[in-house]
Amino acid sequence: MKLALAQINTTVGDLSDNVARCLDAISAAGIQGADLIVLPEMAVPGYPPRDILFDNSFVQAVAAATQDLAQRAVDLPPAIVGTLTPADHQLPNHPNLYNTAVLLQAGEAHPVAYKRLLPTYDVFYEARWFLPGPAFPPIKIAGRSVGVLICEDMWDEDYPVHPGTELVNTGADLLVCIAATPYRKGVQTERLYHARRQGCPIAHLNLVGANDELIFDGRSFVLDAEGQLTHQSAAFKESVEIVDLDAPPTELPCIAPEAEHYHALTLGIGDFAAKNNLKHAFLGLSGGVDSAVTVALAAAALGPENVTGIAIPARYTDPRSTESARQLATTLGIAFEVVELENMHTATEATLGDLLTESGTAAENVQARLRMLILMSYVNRSGGLLLNTSNKTELALGYSTIYGDMAGTLSPLGDLTKPEVYALANWIDANQAAIPAFCLERPPSAELRPDQVDPFDYPKIAPEMEQLVLENRSDAALRRSEHKRWQMGVILKVSRKAFGTGRMIPITRK
Amino acid sequence: MKLALAQINTTVGDLSDNVARCLDAISAAGIQGADLIVLPEMAVPGYPPRDILFDNSFVQAVAAATQDLAQRAVDLPPAIVGTLTPADHQLPNHPNLYNTAVLLQAGEAHPVAYKRLLPTYDVFYEARWFLPGPAFPPIKIAGRSVGVLICEDMWDEDYPVHPGTELVNTGADLLVCIAATPYRKGVQTERLYHARRQGCPIAHLNLVGANDELIFDGRSFVLDAEGQLTHQSAAFKESVEIVDLDAPPTELPCIAPEAEHYHALTLGIGDFAAKNNLKHAFLGLSGGVDSAVTVALAAAALGPENVTGIAIPARYTDPRSTESARQLATTLGIAFEVVELENMHTATEATLGDLLTESGTAAENVQARLRMLILMSYVNRSGGLLLNTSNKTELALGYSTIYGDMAGTLSPLGDLTKPEVYALANWIDANQAAIPAFCLERPPSAELRPDQVDPFDYPKIAPEMEQLVLENRSDAALRRSEHKRWQMGVILKVSRKAFGTGRMIPITRK
Repeated sequence: MKLALAQINTTVGDLSDNVARCLDAISAAGIQGADLIVLPEMAVPGYPPRDILFDNSFVQAVAAATQDLAQRAVDLPPAIVGTLTPADHQLPNHPNLYNTAVLLQAGEAHPVAYKRLLPTYDVFYEARWFLPGPAFPPIKIAGRSVGVLICEDMWDEDYPVHPGTELVNTGADLLVCIAATPYRKGVQTERLYHARRQGCPIAHLNLVGANDELIFDGRSFVLDAEGQLTHQSAAFKESVEIVDLDAPPTELPCIAPEAEHYHALTLGIGDFAAKNNLKHAFLGLSGGVDSAVTVALAAAALGPENVTGIAIPARYTDPRSTESARQLATTLGIAFEVVELENMHTATEATLGDLLTESGTAAENVQARLRMLILMSYVNRSGGLLLNTSNKTELALGYSTIYGDMAGTLSPLGDLTKPEVYALANWIDANQAAIPAFCLERPPSAELRPDQVDPFDYPKIAPEMEQLVLENRSDAALRRSEHKRWQMGVILKVSRKAFGTGRMIPITRK
Repeated sequence: MKLALAQINTTVGDLSDNVARCLDAISAAGIQGADLIVLPEMAVPGYPPRDILFDNSFVQAVAAATQDLAQRAVDLPPAIVGTLTPADHQLPNHPNLYNTAVLLQAGEAHPVAYKRLLPTYDVFYEARWFLPGPAFPPIKIAGRSVGVLICEDMWDEDYPVHPGTELVNTGADLLVCIAATPYRKGVQTERLYHARRQGCPIAHLNLVGANDELIFDGRSFVLDAEGQLTHQSAAFKESVEIVDLDAPPTELPCIAPEAEHYHALTLGIGDFAAKNNLKHAFLGLSGGVDSAVTVALAAAALGPENVTGIAIPARYTDPRSTESARQLATTLGIAFEVVELENMHTATEATLGDLLTESGTAAENVQARLRMLILMSYVNRSGGLLLNTSNKTELALGYSTIYGDMAGTLSPLGDLTKPEVYALANWIDANQAAIPAFCLERPPSAELRPDQVDPFDYPKIAPEMEQLVLENRSDAALRRSEHKRWQMGVILKVSRKAFGTGRMIPITRK
C-alpha cells in the first residue's frame, strides 16, 4: 500500500486556502500513485479555531468548504482529512460539534472517525466546543482495514477509553492518526511512545505551521508491525511524501535541542507575520543576548530585508552594547538604526522631577518605556510587528517593565529559560550567523543605572523558576508578577508549560 | 424552618480567611436560631481558582481547611458549604476533582452533593478541573427533605440531565442551591426563571464579591412552593440573613440598570485593590466622560483619600478639559495633579523627527504613550494600581493606543458600551456626585490633533459592535484589533460577553 503523508500548513479560518492546499496535496500524491492520502486534523477550518466555533456561520462555511473539497477531489484517490461536523444537540451554550475525520471518495465526504478523547489541559480546551464522538469501525482501503484516530485518541494510556485498541480488536490492520499536536521539547519521543503502544502498524500525520502561540512541527511518521520507525517526514516544513508501508526500518534523525528551538521559532515568527499580513518586524537591539537571538531568528524567518533593529543607547549604556548591536545587524544584513535616548530622558526628568529621584524603580522604568515608545513609532509609521525580546526566566521573576521591555505583539523567546537562550545563541553563532562575543560573554544587565547587572544567579534560579511553572505552582516569586504577564503578547510555546493561554492562573489570590 | 443565607465574600486561595468567614457566619446564624446555614459554592478554596487546581498541594490544603472548618463548627447548627473533593482518577492531565457541597455536622464534613452540570462556556472552563459527579439523595434536616444543587445544576433547562427534578422525584421538599454565578446584566431575572422551573420551594445562595474579571452579586433568594419570591438578600454586599421558609411573598426590589453597574463596578474595583493589597489607585483625567466615570467609581470604591487623578494637558487639549477634571477631583475630594506634556512631547519630536511628521498615527500615539509613562511613574513611585479608562466600544473598534490609553491593570469600563458609559455618568451625576457638564456634553475626542473628534456615530455603532461581540462573531471590524485586546488588563465583566478570558478568539485567522 502506498500512503501519502501530506503535512500541510493551514491557517485558522482561511477555508479557501486550506481547501486549495488539501487539493494540491491530494492531486500531487495521486500523480505519484498513492492509494490513500492523509491530511491533518482540522485541516479545513484550520487549528485551533477556538471560540470562532461559537459563530454558527463559520461552522456552516466549514461544512460547505468540506463538501467543495470532496467534489473537487472526485477523480482523485481517496483521502482522509480533518474537519468538523455538527453533533446532535447535547449541551446548551456549546457548539455541539464533532472533531471529525472524513474520507473523501467519489465526490463525497463521509465521516470515518470522530475524536473520542478531548484534551482539556494546558493549551487544549476541546470540551468547550466538541463532544466526544461515538466509535466507527475500520474502513477498507486498497485491501487494508484502516482504523482512524484523531490526535488525543492515540494518547489514550491513562484514559478509561482506548480507541486504538478497540479498532484493532474490530479488525484494523493499519491505524491512521491525524493530528495537530503542538511542538514542545521532547514531543516526538512521546508521540513515538504512544504510537508504539497501539500494537499495530500506524501512520501518524501531524499538522505543520504556526498559529499564534502554537507551533506544529510536522514530523509525520510510520511505524511497522514491530513498532519500528520506517519513515519520518521533515520537521517544521510542509511536505507531501509517498510512503511504502513495507519499507525497511530507518533511523530517527538526530536533532540538537537548540536546532529544534531554532527551527520551531523561525517557523513561529514567519507564520505569525505571514498569516497576519505583517511584512516587517522591528525590535530593540540592546547588545544583550536576548535581543541578539531574537533578531537572528527574525532575519532567518522573514528575510533580512524585512527586519529593522533599533539601538537606543542611554546614559548608562556601555558603548560596546551599541557597537555589538551594529555589528550583528551588519552580519545579518538587516536595517539598523540608532536613536539616542538622552534628550527624551532629560525632558522626562524635567517634567517628572521628584517622582523619579525618589524612586529607583520609577526612574529605571522610564527608560524602558521611552524605548517602547520609540520602537512603536517605527511600527506605527510603517506598519509591521514589534518583536518582544523577553525570556521566560525574566517573565517568571517579573524582572521586566510592563509597557516597556514587555511590549511587543509576539514574543519568540518568552518560553525559553535564560540558559536556553544562551544555548540557542551559541548554536546560532556556530551554525548560522556570528553573534558578537560581547553579547555572549557580558554579564546580563538591563543597563538602567550605572554598573547595573541582573541580580540573579541565572544558572541556579532559572531551573528553579521553570520547575515552579511546570508543576503549576504559583509561589510568591511567581505570584507578584501575574498581573504583568496577564498583559503579555503572544508567547511562542516550546516547552511543556508556557506562559499564555495554557496557564490560566488568577491574579487575585492569596 | 429557619434558614440562614450567608452570602460571604471569599478570596481565591485565602483558605484561613475563607474558613474564618464561614465560621463567623455559621456562629452568628446559630445565635439567631437558624436550623441550617447555607454558604456559597467553593467557599473554602474561593472561586474561581482555575489552574491553581493543578497544584496538588493546594487541593490538599483545601481538604485540611474544610476539615478544620467542620471541627471548629462542631457545636454549631448544621451548615452546607461549597468546597472541592478528589474524585477517583478518570482523566490524565486533569485534577480529577468534584465541585462539592459538604454538610458540616457533629465536627465532620460529609459530601451531600457533587456538581453534575459543568459549564464550559464564556468564563467557565469547569471541565478542565472537575468531573461531573454522581447524584446524592436528599438529606433530612429539621424535618425537611433537602435536595442540594450546585450552581449550573439549577440551569439545567437545555441539558440532558435534570438534577433538581431528580431530587424532587426522590422526595426533596426543599431545594438548596449554592452558587457562584457572576453578575451580568439581567442575571437575577434569569436566576429566578431557572429557580421557578424546578417546581419546588428553593433557597438560592450566591457568592458575593469580586475576583479579577468576575463580580458576584449575591442577591440570594427564596421561592415558595408557588414560585413566589419570599426573600431576596442584598445586592453586591456581604450578608447573613435568617429567613423563615413560611414567610409571605415579597416584591422584587427594583434597581435601575445604571445603579446595578455602579454597585457592581465599585465592588469590582474595591475587591481587586483590597484582595491584591493595593491601597491607592491612579488614573489619567482627560475631562472626557470615560475618565470622569472611572474616577467617580474609584473614589466610591476606595475612598477619595486613596485616589489620585492626573491631568496631562498637551498642545491640543482644550483648557476646559483640565478645568473640568480639576472640578471633578474637587467634588470627589481626591488628590489631583497636573503634568504638562509639552516638554516631553517636544523632546520626542526632536528625537524622532520624520518618523512622526510622516505618520499621523505615530504622532498621535506618542502622546498617549507619554501619558502612560507619566501615570506609571506615579504607580512605580508610590505603589498601587493604574486604572484603565477605556470603554467596550473603543476596545471593539480598536480606537485606542496599545501601551498608551490601553494601559492599566484594571479596566472598570471595558465591558460598558459608550452609551452605557453616558447613562452611568448621568446616573452618577444625579445620584452620587456632580459630573461637570463639559464632560457630559462635549463631543467625544481624544484631543490628539487640532479639533479632533472621535470619527464614530456612537449611538449607531456601539450597539452594532456589541451585537458582534455577543454573537461571538469576529468580523473584520473586530479582527483588526484582536492583537491589541490580547494585551489588555483585567476587564470587569458586566455583560453577557466581555473581552477577556471568556472570549478565546485567535489573533491569527483569515
